[in-house]
Formats: sequence, structure tokens, C-alpha cells
Amino acid sequence: MAAVEIDRLVRLLSRLPGLGPRSAQRAALAMLKRRDTLMLPLADALRACAEAVHPCSRCGNLDSTDPCGVCRDPQRDARTLCVVAEVEDLWAMERAGIFKGRYQVLGGTLRALDGIGPDELGVDRLLGRVREDEVREVILALGATVDGQTTSHYLAERLRPLGCTVSRLGHGVPIGGELTYLDEGTLDAALRSRQRVA
Amino acid sequence: MAAVEIDRLVRLLSRLPGLGPRSAQRAALAMLKRRDTLMLPLADALRACAEAVHPCSRCGNLDSTDPCGVCRDPQRDARTLCVVAEVEDLWAMERAGIFKGRYQVLGGTLRALDGIGPDELGVDRLLGRVREDEVREVILALGATVDGQTTSHYLAERLRPLGCTVSRLGHGVPIGGELTYLDEGTLDAALRSRQRVA
Ligand SMILES: [Zn+2]
Ligand SMILES: [Zn+2]
Repeated sequence: MAAVEIDRLVRLLSRLPGLGPRSAQRAALAMLKRRDTLMLPLADALRACAEAVHPCSRCGNLDSTDPCGVCRDPQRDARTLCVVAEVEDLWAMERAGIFKGRYQVLGGTLRALDGIGPDELGVDRLLGRVREDEVREVILALGATVDGQTTSHYLAERLRPLGCTVSRLGHGVPIGGELTYLDEGTLDAALRSRQRVA
Repeated sequence: MAAVEIDRLVRLLSRLPGLGPRSAQRAALAMLKRRDTLMLPLADALRACAEAVHPCSRCGNLDSTDPCGVCRDPQRDARTLCVVAEVEDLWAMERAGIFKGRYQVLGGTLRALDGIGPDELGVDRLLGRVREDEVREVILALGATVDGQTTSHYLAERLRPLGCTVSRLGHGVPIGGELTYLDEGTLDAALRSRQRVA
């Protein structure tokens, strides 16, 4: 129907979360109407981002510096560690602006059926960091899903022998909900009412 | 919070139709996880599309050739002309595969308040084309919205003196609906039940 260039663009756009084939086509046409103000700047931004942004070798956050901005900030308390499943969860916490410690991004949650075990989530690296940085409290900020709760239980068991406080986010995380969709007030309440689990 | 590169990318993505700030951030992170298979190919596809694809000087369709594929196809009947508001409407008709004539893309509908009049929509070009190509029937395939109907009325009045048949899409276009969201069956019914208006 249309040019192969448009077909290819629509196919790639429809692989983005939240865009189906029809909305990908609408997005492609919207960009073709704003070639110089949207389409080419977006091509540049994608390339710049792909080249400049990489995972932080300490915490797993994504940033254009390594260590990332959070890990390099001397104002932040290195002895309070917030464990999140994904980078979007770290960003959700940062948007809320309620936490002044550091993070560890697991990159997922335990899912034996998908072959995601402690090694894939870097649990040994987490334990090593708790020891080296003499972490006083580990806050398990994982979603209130089955996988999130399984992972929290497992991490609490592994962290218990190290002698630090281990807590999980408290009231406020909706059952079955993902962190990244929570508003700031809910995240604030959840952080303040965190419960010690080990 | 994050790298300026990510902020810029999220800001541009959130200008696409169907993506808000939160879903733009999710899209950016999804791409950062698939740098080589999604992010860089998308950057290339955007640039290739911006460079290769342009409006057809005859009908207003978007394609990498000028005249476009529809206008160059000798199998298509140059004496039946389908007038659509936007390129997405042309594509919706082509997806349905029910029309074998040619198109004229207006680029919008009449909206006096926004300063969109006959000149902006290229009405003189449409009339000239009807004369030159000795068009027998003009099908006004505009949405069943107030603006679409106003535009259809206006075009019917202008086309009447030229002696060609003027019809509009018939039963099947839902009131208040846009062409681009219609399924093939609805478009097919609408085309078959088109009503002569001039
Ligand atoms: Zn970091
Ligand atoms: Zn054309």
C-alpha cells in the first residue's frame, strides 16, 4: 500500500509498549507531517540515547555516566539501600522524591519457570554490596505481585544473616499493582509504613 | 533524575499521538533494553522515512515515489476520484481493498474558525483535476462529522456545474466517527451504498 520505508517504520513502532499497529501508523503519519520538528529530532534523540546511556555498574540504573547520578551523589545515604525490580521502579521512586538512599536494580523478579533465579538477578552482588558499604537497612521495594512477594521472601532470608534491617514497602502498594504506575502519595505512604521482615 | 538524553527522548516520544509522558518513559526504557534490535533500527527507519517519503504532487498521498504508487498504477480508473480528508483515510480505504479509482487528499476539512478554507484544501486543484482527467464520478469519502459534512456539501456545490456524478459514502459510516478507525466491512458497505448528492 505505502512505501516500504513507512511499512518498516510502522512495524518497528508497533513493537513499542502501548502502540498497536493502528496507533503506530497514526504516529508515523503524525511524524511525516512534522518531519523537521519531530521526526528527525526523534531519530537523533534515539541515536544519542543509544550511544550515551548505559547501565550503572554499581546499581543497574540507566544514565549517561557510570557510576550513575544517584550513586555519585555524596548527599545520598550509602547505608540505606532500596532494592527494585526494574529501572522504571527506581525512576518512580525518584519522581516521588521521598528516598535519599541508594538503589539496587535486580532487573526482574524470581521466576523459576522462565529460568530467572538468584544468579540472573545478581543476588550475590547485592549481598556483597550490603557487606562492603556496611548497609544498615535494605528496603525491598518490589511490587505486591506473587513474583514480587516471592522475591522479597527469598531476599529477606538471604539478607537476615548479614545483620542489617530488612524492610518491605508497607500499606499503599495496591495488591497486584506495579510500582511504576503508583502516584507519589501512594509511594510516600508505602515508604513511611514499611514493615520490617528480618 | 535521569540522563538529559533520556529526558529529551521521552519528551519527543510523548508528542506522538497515543503516548503520554508515562507511556513515553516506558517506551524509552523498552528501547534501551533492546538497543540493537529496536532503538537503533528505529532511529534508522525514522531517518530513511523522513528522507524518502514525500507527498504525491498529484493526489497528496505519502509515498517514496512521485507520483505515488496509486497514481502510477495503470490498472486504476483515473475517471473515478475518491476525495478524503487525510492520508490515513486513503490508507484505510486501501486496506479495505474495495476501491479501484484514484484519490485526492484534501489535508483536512473546512474549518472557518481555524482559517481552513477552500484554498488550504486545494479545492481549485480538485476541480481542475476533475476537468483534465474527465472524471465521471467524485466520491466524497469524508467522515460523518459536522466538519466532514460541511465540506461534503461545499464540494458538492462546487462540483455540480462540472457535470460529473458526485456521491458521498453511504450507510455504514457511524455518526461522529472517523474513517481511519473503520473496519473493512463497514467501509465496504459504505462504499456500496454511496448516495448521489449532485
Ligand atoms: Zn548507580
Ligand atoms: Zn498520488
